[in-house]
Amino acid sequence: MYPPKQHQDNNIDHMIEVIKTYPLATVISVKDHHPLITHLPLVYEDGKLIGHIDIYNPQAELLKGDNDVTLIFAGPECYISPSIYSTTQLPTWNYIKVHLKGKVRAIESKAALKQSLITMTEFLEAPDHKYTLESDNPRLDKNLDYIEMFEITITDWEGKFKLSQDKKPSDTKAARKELIRANTQSITHFLDQIF
Amino acid sequence: MYPPKQHQDNNIDHMIEVIKTYPLATVISVKDHHPLITHLPLVYEDGKLIGHIDIYNPQAELLKGDNDVTLIFAGPECYISPSIYSTTQLPTWNYIKVHLKGKVRAIESKAALKQSLITMTEFLEAPDHKYTLESDNPRLDKNLDYIEMFEITITDWEGKFKLSQDKKPSDTKAARKELIRANTQSITHFLDQIF
Repeated sequence: MYPPKQHQDNNIDHMIEVIKTYPLATVISVKDHHPLITHLPLVYEDGKLIGHIDIYNPQAELLKGDNDVTLIFAGPECYISPSIYSTTQLPTWNYIKVHLKGKVRAIESKAALKQSLITMTEFLEAPDHKYTLESDNPRLDKNLDYIEMFEITITDWEGKFKLSQDKKPSDTKAARKELIRANTQSITHFLDQIF
Repeated sequence: MYPPKQHQDNNIDHMIEVIKTYPLATVISVKDHHPLITHLPLVYEDGKLIGHIDIYNPQAELLKGDNDVTLIFAGPECYISPSIYSTTQLPTWNYIKVHLKGKVRAIESKAALKQSLITMTEFLEAPDHKYTLESDNPRLDKNLDYIEMFEITITDWEGKFKLSQDKKPSDTKAARKELIRANTQSITHFLDQIF
């Protein structure tokens, strides 16, 4: 009954594509029955995810010792008005989310941390590589003492791809078109209100 | 020390703007030390948020009885390459996230649920109103038995607006421009890979 089968995608390659295109993870730990949440880019490699956290972030002490961690990677999402369909439907929301569970351990080596920051920058700067984080960058060295590196071994994968797959092909296509339209709309008006 | 003051925005009007522009909330409950997570659009009014959940979703039983609930509303985000700045900086990620904590209660009345689905649709269809959810829609009536309505009273607000505010004005402006560029980029290539 739940979750509806037509909205689940168990293809790990699809989930990795989401992780690589939208690397900013919502990292969730639980302490005393309350969630601690930080938004951090993570780099995927061979069933593991590497990240870095500010040592003063209260969640840092939980990202070690094989603790449980839950991750959300979020792809595009939008409201789907029934007006976009050729058939009669109720309003809904479409989205692409990847939920992962894993075990997290700290990596204490400052050399590994440094290399990992360089590797992450290389990944995020692809394909144009307009910037390279050089290993002799003095700011980089200065920062190493204030960052903790961690590695998550993924134990559970769940792909929530809610994309009107249960509608007839022309309506699924209309929903896809709407997702593209909504996710390439200007955000300038919104930013003007808040910043 | 944490969170860095320059990235916190305590202006509730700014947070409400995020909630109204990006209504798809990440709704987090904790059960037996594990987070349960559902993505649901919520409608804000006077310090409260109204939502609806599938009765077969295991989280439904937690969205009642004045239970604790944590919410994330997510605005735009993007990687900030040091190459966009006129000054020397390290790579970072900018984002707008609103973290809320609240108490949730169920609203049992089917009449209130029905009216609330109509009101939510009205809100989400603004400003063009290409679709109206009519109260005599037979699909709507058929669905009421499978949806639970809940109301969250917000107790804690946290605005995480990480927007390079600590840089010099021309660099903050460059980061804003990059946020706009990244968030209006085509998603077609990504969708082609996964769907």
